[in-house]
Amino acid sequence: MRYKEFTIEGRNAVIEAFRSGKPIDKVLIMDGAQDGPIQTIKREAKKHDTVVKFVAKERLDQISSTGMHQGVIAYAAAYEYAGVEDILEAAREKNEPPFIILLDNIEDPHNLGAIIRTANLAGAHGVIIPKDRAAGLTAAVARASAGALNYTPVARVTNLARTIEELKKEGMWFVCADMDGTVMYNLDLKGAIGLVIGGEGAGVGRLVREKCDFVASIPMKGDIDSLNASVAAGVLAYEIVRQRAL
Amino acid sequence: MRYKEFTIEGRNAVIEAFRSGKPIDKVLIMDGAQDGPIQTIKREAKKHDTVVKFVAKERLDQISSTGMHQGVIAYAAAYEYAGVEDILEAAREKNEPPFIILLDNIEDPHNLGAIIRTANLAGAHGVIIPKDRAAGLTAAVARASAGALNYTPVARVTNLARTIEELKKEGMWFVCADMDGTVMYNLDLKGAIGLVIGGEGAGVGRLVREKCDFVASIPMKGDIDSLNASVAAGVLAYEIVRQRAL
Repeated sequence: MRYKEFTIEGRNAVIEAFRSGKPIDKVLIMDGAQDGPIQTIKREAKKHDTVVKFVAKERLDQISSTGMHQGVIAYAAAYEYAGVEDILEAAREKNEPPFIILLDNIEDPHNLGAIIRTANLAGAHGVIIPKDRAAGLTAAVARASAGALNYTPVARVTNLARTIEELKKEGMWFVCADMDGTVMYNLDLKGAIGLVIGGEGAGVGRLVREKCDFVASIPMKGDIDSLNASVAAGVLAYEIVRQRAL
Repeated sequence: MRYKEFTIEGRNAVIEAFRSGKPIDKVLIMDGAQDGPIQTIKREAKKHDTVVKFVAKERLDQISSTGMHQGVIAYAAAYEYAGVEDILEAAREKNEPPFIILLDNIEDPHNLGAIIRTANLAGAHGVIIPKDRAAGLTAAVARASAGALNYTPVARVTNLARTIEELKKEGMWFVCADMDGTVMYNLDLKGAIGLVIGGEGAGVGRLVREKCDFVASIPMKGDIDSLNASVAAGVLAYEIVRQRAL
């Protein structure tokens, strides 16, 4: 396992990280910061397609572990991302129809790690997350994945809806988890399948949902609204496992 | 929801909490502390069947939020526990065969909360945890349960193996989740059932496991050892839901 420090603090350190090619998930910049090094960081972020967020100084103080953030904190990925093609290749190598888990709005690192762990054990060939609405592959995610991040490729894409469209051309079809769909036992979940799971607050985004072929629901018998996102992903992934084994 | 402060610090505060009948999960006492108030706390703990652990001063300093623990920190339950009888009564009221989830060695509050949430939505009538090898019903558990703790009764018992034996006399049978069992799809999981889930490190204790009628396994296709405990509980609970609906 390669655990890395997952925040990088200070102007020079962040610029250096970009230039050395470290995968950076996100940069937080203090509101109103405008000087030369900050402009350089913004340019580098743009070049590397990294999300930039402007936040209050207090927020940076809170996150900072060194106390010397100089108005900039970057989140570096602890692991390297795979490409979508690597995931398809993994399926081809095993001579299996692709089974991919796609996540939208999963921002909690424990949930992301637990889902990568589930993907590994349910025999999914990889996980796809969007650039702007997901936790990155930080040390916390790696720990929660219990080692699965060493085996299961995770790809990060700019536009999840577009990726789904491209994968449909490869013969995949997509099922989205949501409450108002067809009970999962009544859907045919075999074949080359993408399972789309949304976060607990926002769920699956509208554009992504519209690209899905079906909406699958987990039967809910209780008093509250929804399962934990990683539990829901596990229940649905294993319904796919069960149907594939029939 | 009733969220309460979940640590109580200092000798008088802890003695007071015991005497006022607050449900206390666990008391941490500094190694070597022997004076009068500490003796009183130990007596109260014994009287209320509360687990006492002796720890180094540094550990208490670390946990303390007030900085004034005086060698004692108590963990108070944020919610009140139900009795096992309440769970059976809930099943009778719904005119359903009892479905209970029993947890052994689940010490992580996020996992405990997520499992109570799953129990609620999978239609389980309650959750049973042991006194000495489980997280208590703290504010963190309540938050992770997403409100389910207000609906799903959680009972805490001294001896999980003995509780299983007593419930067997009521006509229940028990399935334990473990890796070397029968694949869950090949077991008949209908009827009055108790599902026993172990923690990620220690699993289900030997004595508890020996009381179970069957061992159920989730099919594992990957490279790592095990699912997150709350995900495993979700997958198995929903296999029960599926079979009950057949």
